Amino acid sequence: MIMENKNYHIYPPSGSLDLLSKVESDLLTKSADGELYQLFRNCLLAVLNTGSQTDDASILFQKYQDFEAKISRTERGIKLELMNPPQSVFVDGELTRLIRTNLFSVLRDILYMREIVSSYDKKRLVKYGSQKIATDIVFMTLRNAKALKAAYDYNVVVCWGGHSINEIEYKYAREVGHELGLRRFDICTGCGPGAMEAPMRGAAVGHTQQGHEANRYIGITEPSIIAAEPPNPLVNELIIMPDIEKRIEAFIRLGHGLIVFPGGVGTAEEFLYVLSILMMEENKDQILPIVLTGPKESESYFKTLDHFIEKSLGKEAQRFYEIIIDNPSLVAQRMKQAMPLVKERRKQSEDAYCFNWSLTISEDLQKPFIPTHENMSGLNLHKNQPKEKLAAALRQAFSGIVAGNIKESGIKAIKEHGPFVLHGDPELMELVDQLLNDFVSQGRMKLPGSTYQPCYRVEK
Amino acid sequence: MIMENKNYHIYPPSGSLDLLSKVESDLLTKSADGELYQLFRNCLLAVLNTGSQTDDASILFQKYQDFEAKISRTERGIKLELMNPPQSVFVDGELTRLIRTNLFSVLRDILYMREIVSSYDKKRLVKYGSQKIATDIVFMTLRNAKALKAAYDYNVVVCWGGHSINEIEYKYAREVGHELGLRRFDICTGCGPGAMEAPMRGAAVGHTQQGHEANRYIGITEPSIIAAEPPNPLVNELIIMPDIEKRIEAFIRLGHGLIVFPGGVGTAEEFLYVLSILMMEENKDQILPIVLTGPKESESYFKTLDHFIEKSLGKEAQRFYEIIIDNPSLVAQRMKQAMPLVKERRKQSEDAYCFNWSLTISEDLQKPFIPTHENMSGLNLHKNQPKEKLAAALRQAFSGIVAGNIKESGIKAIKEHGPFVLHGDPELMELVDQLLNDFVSQGRMKLPGSTYQPCYRVEK
Amino acid sequence: MIMENKNYHIYPPSGSLDLLSKVESDLLTKSADGELYQLFRNCLLAVLNTGSQTDDASILFQKYQDFEAKISRTERGIKLELMNPPQSVFVDGELTRLIRTNLFSVLRDILYMREIVSSYDKKRLVKYGSQKIATDIVFMTLRNAKALKAAYDYNVVVCWGGHSINEIEYKYAREVGHELGLRRFDICTGCGPGAMEAPMRGAAVGHTQQGHEANRYIGITEPSIIAAEPPNPLVNELIIMPDIEKRIEAFIRLGHGLIVFPGGVGTAEEFLYVLSILMMEENKDQILPIVLTGPKESESYFKTLDHFIEKSLGKEAQRFYEIIIDNPSLVAQRMKQAMPLVKERRKQSEDAYCFNWSLTISEDLQKPFIPTHENMSGLNLHKNQPKEKLAAALRQAFSGIVAGNIKESGIKAIKEHGPFVLHGDPELMELVDQLLNDFVSQGRMKLPGSTYQPCYRVEK
Amino acid sequence: MIMENKNYHIYPPSGSLDLLSKVESDLLTKSADGELYQLFRNCLLAVLNTGSQTDDASILFQKYQDFEAKISRTERGIKLELMNPPQSVFVDGELTRLIRTNLFSVLRDILYMREIVSSYDKKRLVKYGSQKIATDIVFMTLRNAKALKAAYDYNVVVCWGGHSINEIEYKYAREVGHELGLRRFDICTGCGPGAMEAPMRGAAVGHTQQGHEANRYIGITEPSIIAAEPPNPLVNELIIMPDIEKRIEAFIRLGHGLIVFPGGVGTAEEFLYVLSILMMEENKDQILPIVLTGPKESESYFKTLDHFIEKSLGKEAQRFYEIIIDNPSLVAQRMKQAMPLVKERRKQSEDAYCFNWSLTISEDLQKPFIPTHENMSGLNLHKNQPKEKLAAALRQAFSGIVAGNIKESGIKAIKEHGPFVLHGDPELMELVDQLLNDFVSQGRMKLPGSTYQPCYRVEK
Repeated sequence: MIMENKNYHIYPPSGSLDLLSKVESDLLTKSADGELYQLFRNCLLAVLNTGSQTDDASILFQKYQDFEAKISRTERGIKLELMNPPQSVFVDGELTRLIRTNLFSVLRDILYMREIVSSYDKKRLVKYGSQKIATDIVFMTLRNAKALKAAYDYNVVVCWGGHSINEIEYKYAREVGHELGLRRFDICTGCGPGAMEAPMRGAAVGHTQQGHEANRYIGITEPSIIAAEPPNPLVNELIIMPDIEKRIEAFIRLGHGLIVFPGGVGTAEEFLYVLSILMMEENKDQILPIVLTGPKESESYFKTLDHFIEKSLGKEAQRFYEIIIDNPSLVAQRMKQAMPLVKERRKQSEDAYCFNWSLTISEDLQKPFIPTHENMSGLNLHKNQPKEKLAAALRQAFSGIVAGNIKESGIKAIKEHGPFVLHGDPELMELVDQLLNDFVSQGRMKLPGSTYQPCYRVEK
Repeated sequence: MIMENKNYHIYPPSGSLDLLSKVESDLLTKSADGELYQLFRNCLLAVLNTGSQTDDASILFQKYQDFEAKISRTERGIKLELMNPPQSVFVDGELTRLIRTNLFSVLRDILYMREIVSSYDKKRLVKYGSQKIATDIVFMTLRNAKALKAAYDYNVVVCWGGHSINEIEYKYAREVGHELGLRRFDICTGCGPGAMEAPMRGAAVGHTQQGHEANRYIGITEPSIIAAEPPNPLVNELIIMPDIEKRIEAFIRLGHGLIVFPGGVGTAEEFLYVLSILMMEENKDQILPIVLTGPKESESYFKTLDHFIEKSLGKEAQRFYEIIIDNPSLVAQRMKQAMPLVKERRKQSEDAYCFNWSLTISEDLQKPFIPTHENMSGLNLHKNQPKEKLAAALRQAFSGIVAGNIKESGIKAIKEHGPFVLHGDPELMELVDQLLNDFVSQGRMKLPGSTYQPCYRVEK
Repeated sequence: MIMENKNYHIYPPSGSLDLLSKVESDLLTKSADGELYQLFRNCLLAVLNTGSQTDDASILFQKYQDFEAKISRTERGIKLELMNPPQSVFVDGELTRLIRTNLFSVLRDILYMREIVSSYDKKRLVKYGSQKIATDIVFMTLRNAKALKAAYDYNVVVCWGGHSINEIEYKYAREVGHELGLRRFDICTGCGPGAMEAPMRGAAVGHTQQGHEANRYIGITEPSIIAAEPPNPLVNELIIMPDIEKRIEAFIRLGHGLIVFPGGVGTAEEFLYVLSILMMEENKDQILPIVLTGPKESESYFKTLDHFIEKSLGKEAQRFYEIIIDNPSLVAQRMKQAMPLVKERRKQSEDAYCFNWSLTISEDLQKPFIPTHENMSGLNLHKNQPKEKLAAALRQAFSGIVAGNIKESGIKAIKEHGPFVLHGDPELMELVDQLLNDFVSQGRMKLPGSTYQPCYRVEK
Repeated sequence: MIMENKNYHIYPPSGSLDLLSKVESDLLTKSADGELYQLFRNCLLAVLNTGSQTDDASILFQKYQDFEAKISRTERGIKLELMNPPQSVFVDGELTRLIRTNLFSVLRDILYMREIVSSYDKKRLVKYGSQKIATDIVFMTLRNAKALKAAYDYNVVVCWGGHSINEIEYKYAREVGHELGLRRFDICTGCGPGAMEAPMRGAAVGHTQQGHEANRYIGITEPSIIAAEPPNPLVNELIIMPDIEKRIEAFIRLGHGLIVFPGGVGTAEEFLYVLSILMMEENKDQILPIVLTGPKESESYFKTLDHFIEKSLGKEAQRFYEIIIDNPSLVAQRMKQAMPLVKERRKQSEDAYCFNWSLTISEDLQKPFIPTHENMSGLNLHKNQPKEKLAAALRQAFSGIVAGNIKESGIKAIKEHGPFVLHGDPELMELVDQLLNDFVSQGRMKLPGSTYQPCYRVEK
């Protein structure tokens, strides 16, 4: 069979960025000047892989080497030309509206990332400090993406969980989404498959039952992971944050509630991130309902995680979340009950309902962690430090393992230098090792069918 | 446990009928003058049973004897008070928007049915003839329900099939709905569970992927069947036609394409109705794509049906439909390919795209068939008549069996006088008997769990 | 010059009645069966005369004898064909959206008038009584025209006044409209030129300043007057009530406040109508703010009218209105201040905010008054009766004079039998005569340029 | 009487910038860090002076010395606090929606002006060149203000003319606006009173007649002139460009047609600017219809101007415009007829319909001209140069005179150093002098009532 490849001309759906300045379109052109072209092209390719079940970006890039993209201008604005795109995403030769929307969201975020970052010159960095600026970038990126609504009458539930969950877990997460949708919650996830997709799919039916139209299925990702975890087909607001730290900060400041489904080490990273924040004295008045939930069959997963938290961070960390097994409507009710308290809190602190400015995030969470072998083995994984510090260090460790598993740079580093080595308290190291082994044995590190090769070694 | 019953005050969602004249509200009041109250109350009760898996209205009426409804007026319009309604339809004590919408659709249609029917006085009947008026009533009822859109850019696929289908068939029909939704088709069904629900559920996800907002999940029912087949939770346009004949006429004139999923005798009735129409000489230029489809596992069902058509109505009847097994996207593509032809045809005949006026429907299809024992045994089920006449007679026979199975009046008649008796050509009677037996053995006559007691006897 | 006449094809703007049943389109066809054609054609012609300064329908009908209209159907709904229409209403060969909207409003109301009236058969008349039914018809006609909004956040000010006012009065009324528009009031008038147009023109600018979009310029008319007082170019909701009594009832029940500009005998009729209502004991709790207003130069007009009220109906009639001279913003403020009281009152009486059901209207106001010579001379214009009765009789007298001035039937009757003769108390007759003479001398009986020939004679 | 001043809390109307980052709100705060506060405060004050008839900013600043503004944040976004604002702009204590919108447009543009300008660092300046960047800033500012719509179905007519025109001219310009509104043109002006207001006022009525909702009354201004020419009450899209050159560039690239009403030297500046552009060889294929129009009474104004153009720039300059006297509908028809040509041209040149990128603007037009005494007397006002160069120099001369008349800096310079001195060809200087004298004698240099003190001296 001869694969016939065609060029496709895609016009921006209404609401998308549909006009570019000459400077902007130069930046995106495949040429010497087009400094953003490669990034742009790769993120588009990820979006055009929507719905595919993979977690290895290199396969994608390998397969579509001859894919190219070109922005051109017409009397009605711009159009995007795709050359040799993947075929499976097309429905009768056309892209769904959401795919088209997301292609132009890539355009928007790639351009804005450069604009906003470049506008913080050295003078401003000194004046405001890097933490204030990191949060400012998160805010400005979300505002530019129209993801922040000053209006009051919506609530975003952030759902975390693995991209590789089994069918029972998928159905369960879909049912939780359905119950959330019936209660008009918008859904925000990491934008990929598995537990990032299931609640959106359920919510779409629940929202339809409510006759609610402006429903939001927000997927927040980052350039280094989008190709490994392409958006799922329901995402209607795709947002690309500059790095994983800003991505998680966006989740936390944007969301009004948090649900954790079964997941792997990435989910654990996110969970430790938020626990580290909530354990800070500065955040003691914050209200952020967190529910860990799954079907009966996944109960052991939560027991393992809960046990790890208790033993590593102590009982005081456990009061920040509730575990609900096999009860989708109860999960949704918990979220609903908490919303008036969240609102009240924002009001009292004169904080925006759509962006939680008042939350303090420590520098070690906010500063991009580069998972080199040196940084990984230098992590302070000892118990003789404040619990929130330990939580932050653990999240860095897990962040490194995610990179070693699925991010391009991480995979390359492991190939060259062997597994990361983690040091720390033997007792703590034992806990970490056990948790990770449990993830491996539950098949949460990789997609089904592949065998997991650990990218780390715990030095006890 | 003490069941606590509360009164609920329901306000009309925007777009609903939200103002009543004094005369109208009198008609709906539980009092001597309230001539429409009982009908109104029963239809409301059916809507409040949305999502329940039943096909026996009497159980419903038995269970909620103390349910009452009251319309009252406020400075902002009207409100509907529900006393002792079913509890299971409420989400945290509130009704979904669609349920509320459908409650007020009941209000709208009950009132309009009386107004429109009463406005055709004897003088007009003589002037226009009963056929013209029947079609006029169908049109006016749909227009009053805002179900007819003069705009051009939508297509309605009517899906027929059983309320009692198995899980594999349900998933298949949902997937067909998903493919239809991806292609922006609106869905119209008989409004109940099973094959009437599954395509809507799938389409809801497909529509969400298309970011399409004004999606339509049209459920057309009639007063005598709504309680036995309550609306499914996705129906966002509930329409109550005066009787089954007008209900089927509404399907045919409203729809631009037709999909038949596995079903029972009700589905066969509808299928024969449409075949009878298309076989008429007057309709030879009509274009109405019909696809019969189901999963691999249901192939035998369509073989049985196809065989029955071939043997009873002949090969010329078979060219009006196509059977597609196990290929949801092909089904949707077939519909999509046909739409330009449908449009072209309407244009040529100067007919409305939203209502197929030019279709001729014979009087024996249009005139309400009252399934008394006498009428049933008087049916002309012989082959020595035009094929479209035979098709019409067969559809009346099946209509009677549906009534005997699930309509209040029919069940009562069977209880009193025993099964209906059908007469006709032995060969034809053999075919009918075989078809019905196949339905029984495939469990298509009743919900799973119950044993089917035939309400008819074929006299060969 | 040869006037080239063309046929124009007009499609219904969105929101208009855009689909007709076969029976309906037959009724409107120029043929034996088209019983509504002539009425339809004449009202269309009136709308096509929008903006012309005339008050003599016969000139219009004379001038456009060869005008014809035809409804036909297309695949997108209906279209209206106009043959030999007036040319001056076209802008570069096209009709404004409002004109097109109003043409289809004619279609809607002509059809509905017949449907609603025919649905009240004798049985119902007996059951409900003619008064209840008259109000029901007013309500149903307004609801069918989508003129009743259950929502709460709008207020309609009804403006009465002459079609023939001078330029200073016009500018003043426009400025009052501007102030009303700035306060987001919707405007409702009798739909013609002069004081019926000026407040709409001012409000259009005020509304634009408020960035308010769903602004309403409601014009309520009746078949017998629409051709003499064609709609002004701002009317965006044209409503045709069956007769003058229902027209005035519609004003009173629809409006939340009332402003009376200088006018002639038609304005006096309307004013007496509302005074008669408010003076009834049954309406003592009603709240309806009434302001009589005009520029400094028109002060004498209001003195005359006020004097007439005082002397004929007494001081207690004067407390229902306030006279404000030369202060547009004060007029608008008065209306604004009254709105919370109006709302409160509707709430207490459980009445709809958009339609004042609770107002009692006596039968002599509601029953169509046919101004024959006999009826006119039989009017009881004596003071020895309840004041509200006298007010009602006076309004009938004035209604007859309007008919004699500008309605086709009235003009014909006068031509044949000479002026109407009015009888009554000499003192009262003196007052009436003086009021009417003042109107004549102020040029309020006819358009400038024509000399007024009185159609009545007061027998003192 | 004691003037009671209150604080007002203004919330952003929907569609406005309603969320700020911490850095942004710091910039606008009245404090050491609030580097944008003074500019922000002054522009707000200008908006709060909407509708006032003045052209002297210093009076405004003098009168409202104690006016202050403060941005604060709430759970629903931001609010703007106004302390001691002008009272006359309030309607019953509230601001109209357009005023509120415009206040937040000030916020948006002040912040964006800094962001966009700061993002063009030296490196980029070198890379792209100052001309490309100037146009980029114009584009980005308009896009950020949502003033560029990729959609196709609208046309913007730019109207130029004096802020100080007489009543006949005002009525005429209003009538032209009415005719434009009837043809659905959007209006763009310099945002102030007089000829900048009248066409908007007329168009508002015309738009209402068309039932058109998303009407645009675009006012483009700049920080140094907004206080002297405050927005008129109809402007619903206020845009503040960084300087007069970018303001005029915005007019030319945004508009699809251009109408010049009688005006003073500012109007002449704009007219010369556009002639200079159109006379360039590079722009020979451009299509931009230009009509100069006024009532009969203003014919001499256009004769003067036309004569000046003929004598200074030659007959070839005259073919770029048409003069229409006393015919508003013809003016609107001319614009309408030209639109298909404009569209076709954009299509052929693959240019955006909403922003004319392909127009070449020479550096001497684009580069901000600072009207110091030195720069003014150094202008090359000789005929021995290309005509478009001469046009550009003349526009700089007139730009300086505008500054000397009404801009703060200009007035100050004149006070200190006396009138500007202009040098050039005696014949040309004679023409200039005569034109300016005509303006003075026609009262076009200042508001009526004040005597004009020339801020320039022509050295012949």
